[in-house]
Amino acid sequence: MMRHGHHVAAWRHPDTDLESNPFAVFRRQVHSAERACLDAVFFADSLALTGGVPTLEPLTLLSALAASTERIGLIGTATTTYNEPYTVARQFASLDQISEGRAGWNLVTSDNAAEAANFGRDRHVAHAARYERAREFHQVVAGLWNSWDSDALINDKQGGRLADAGKIHPLNHRGEHFSVAGPLNVSRSPQGRPVVVQAGGSEAGRALAAATAEVVFTAQPSLASAQAFYRDMKGRLAAHGRAAESLKIMPGLFAVVGSSQAEAEDKFGQLQRLIVPEAGLALLGRMIGNFDLSTYPLDGPLPELPQTQDGQRSRQQLLTDLAQGENLSIRQLYERIAGGRGHFTVVGTAEAVADQMQAWFEQEAADGFNFMAPSLPGGLDDFLSLVVPELQRRGLFRKTYQGTTLREHLGLNPAHKQAELS
Amino acid sequence: MMRHGHHVAAWRHPDTDLESNPFAVFRRQVHSAERACLDAVFFADSLALTGGVPTLEPLTLLSALAASTERIGLIGTATTTYNEPYTVARQFASLDQISEGRAGWNLVTSDNAAEAANFGRDRHVAHAARYERAREFHQVVAGLWNSWDSDALINDKQGGRLADAGKIHPLNHRGEHFSVAGPLNVSRSPQGRPVVVQAGGSEAGRALAAATAEVVFTAQPSLASAQAFYRDMKGRLAAHGRAAESLKIMPGLFAVVGSSQAEAEDKFGQLQRLIVPEAGLALLGRMIGNFDLSTYPLDGPLPELPQTQDGQRSRQQLLTDLAQGENLSIRQLYERIAGGRGHFTVVGTAEAVADQMQAWFEQEAADGFNFMAPSLPGGLDDFLSLVVPELQRRGLFRKTYQGTTLREHLGLNPAHKQAELS
Repeated sequence: MMRHGHHVAAWRHPDTDLESNPFAVFRRQVHSAERACLDAVFFADSLALTGGVPTLEPLTLLSALAASTERIGLIGTATTTYNEPYTVARQFASLDQISEGRAGWNLVTSDNAAEAANFGRDRHVAHAARYERAREFHQVVAGLWNSWDSDALINDKQGGRLADAGKIHPLNHRGEHFSVAGPLNVSRSPQGRPVVVQAGGSEAGRALAAATAEVVFTAQPSLASAQAFYRDMKGRLAAHGRAAESLKIMPGLFAVVGSSQAEAEDKFGQLQRLIVPEAGLALLGRMIGNFDLSTYPLDGPLPELPQTQDGQRSRQQLLTDLAQGENLSIRQLYERIAGGRGHFTVVGTAEAVADQMQAWFEQEAADGFNFMAPSLPGGLDDFLSLVVPELQRRGLFRKTYQGTTLREHLGLNPAHKQAELS
Repeated sequence: MMRHGHHVAAWRHPDTDLESNPFAVFRRQVHSAERACLDAVFFADSLALTGGVPTLEPLTLLSALAASTERIGLIGTATTTYNEPYTVARQFASLDQISEGRAGWNLVTSDNAAEAANFGRDRHVAHAARYERAREFHQVVAGLWNSWDSDALINDKQGGRLADAGKIHPLNHRGEHFSVAGPLNVSRSPQGRPVVVQAGGSEAGRALAAATAEVVFTAQPSLASAQAFYRDMKGRLAAHGRAAESLKIMPGLFAVVGSSQAEAEDKFGQLQRLIVPEAGLALLGRMIGNFDLSTYPLDGPLPELPQTQDGQRSRQQLLTDLAQGENLSIRQLYERIAGGRGHFTVVGTAEAVADQMQAWFEQEAADGFNFMAPSLPGGLDDFLSLVVPELQRRGLFRKTYQGTTLREHLGLNPAHKQAELS
């Protein structure tokens, strides 16, 4: 869930609330999502001011939401590039306790120069080194989450024993990037440990996800590409001794929903007309590898660009191919990504959106979806009030929560005695 | 507010709730404190499992409490030794937004070996280097908090301008320990910026507090020592161009309150009898500079100890002087610190406690107090239901909140246009 919605002009939509406390705005939207029994809300993150839009920090926001909700899962992003594993393990374990088992950690690496400049580095960390660090970072975090057995706390006031020391395990990790003694100072949560989410699409990202993730978010423009990704990811699991259902593949879905096709297109057109060229250019520049495009004519072609050194090579290639293939101007290209940003995009009725979701779900392209509301609250409310009931009619989505933890919502096994992923 | 209370045996008290979700337990206690109109709740922190008692991480806990409360201030500890300033600035700014201006940051340095071992260091960072880093860390955090003018967000949907770029300031800090470009990606909060709290008692700690803190917590065993500390701290402010009232001195107060002196002593005795020797020894060992005392006879004298290399030399000296001066055994010494841990301790009626508080307040020893509940919830409830009304009767404490922000509760100026402390 982005501050004002996923469309780059969402904040200009007449319904968007810019005046209230941002937490109060998020809380209303998450309450709507919870009434519709969605698995979780998800917050991406940036360690720099991006697109000029200030927002709240994910861990503090999710913790406040934990106290304001009962059932919905709470997934937040924390980078492995500029954090310490003890701190990340602790904050998510604490969120997991506070929410009684609803926390998820979206593990990312940080690949852009603006973030690097806020953390003492002149340039971002190189791609390969970032992923090596991420792998070891995950190993430490997972180890810390396992440092308290679920029955370690015994609360024996009479006997003077709060915990069974034999069930609290130091980690004593010594690796290339980290040395961490442990144990964690947060005890085990009701779901055993937070759910681990990832989103990297590169080879290194896929390899890391196959080894460590329980949910993968992915940007897929079409059914065919999503099926290829799904096959690839599921196929990697056996080598790690993992069952296919232990990793849920969730493509992004940018859907503008109307009661008719024409109404949906009107809604989308309204947002498209609100794009400020500077914002469109800035978004395109970021997505194409942090290039400044402001000196080129808006209605001219995309210039030849050097291959980005940031971690966005596959996206850069996708966008330059798209611009060349369809002969798009810079303006047309940023209009193409202003909403979905490379994610699967549907503009149509609830039936049309549900048809696509059903096809992806039944044809091994998705285990679920990461819905990206075009604007907030309207784009979310449309999806919840129109598409969710249609999915329920088709027997594809729950009508009430069956479980209480995020693992239960996602159909993942509890992690109390699960073998450690590493 | 500690997990079960400030007394080392608090968790064994019959009223302590070990079974409920720890967040739910904290929330009930904070609601009690808010009904009594206390300025704030305060959470210390440790980056390691300390005393075998797991707890919640302060930022996540305070954020969840922000969503569960309306008025009470929310102060949490974050170390400058093992964090990055951009992250700390952001999480507290976000908490400040979520709580609509009730956040406070207790700036500490980390001085113990158990914490160091969770952050890739074989030993803690040396005292002087820690304080140099802390000073620069504060400078960066304060700069980031000032990077958004309070009127930077203009929310001009028609004109397509979300913010006035001229009122968002990059920091471009380049120092010995940190290089941080800025600006922050969280906009300004209702109180301008979080309140900065410190607790260091050493010369370096006092110098840092005089330059940067707005509240100082301090452990003072007596009125005379508190007066000396108060005079010293207030006297340091002029050199920084600061008024005496811009820094609030708040000694810790460990008070066991009963409806009679005998009842108060019974309550204290009940806790003292619950001390498990291992826990008492471990607490003493930590406070005296991380020494293992378990091989010495409990009822024998404190052995000669080498001067600690950790940042607790003044406390080590205090405790060895106490043991020698009163000829205390190891057991007697840990019993002496099991409750107040070196803080001012009163065991008595509400009138007796209020008399002491009034004397300290009127005789320039304190601008307020950091009340440390012996056990939770009972020790807190006793203070709120017995001492607070007595202070109100004397006209020494508010009956309703007058303001909405922590700065207002504390009588500190808003920080919108305040000159930057550095």
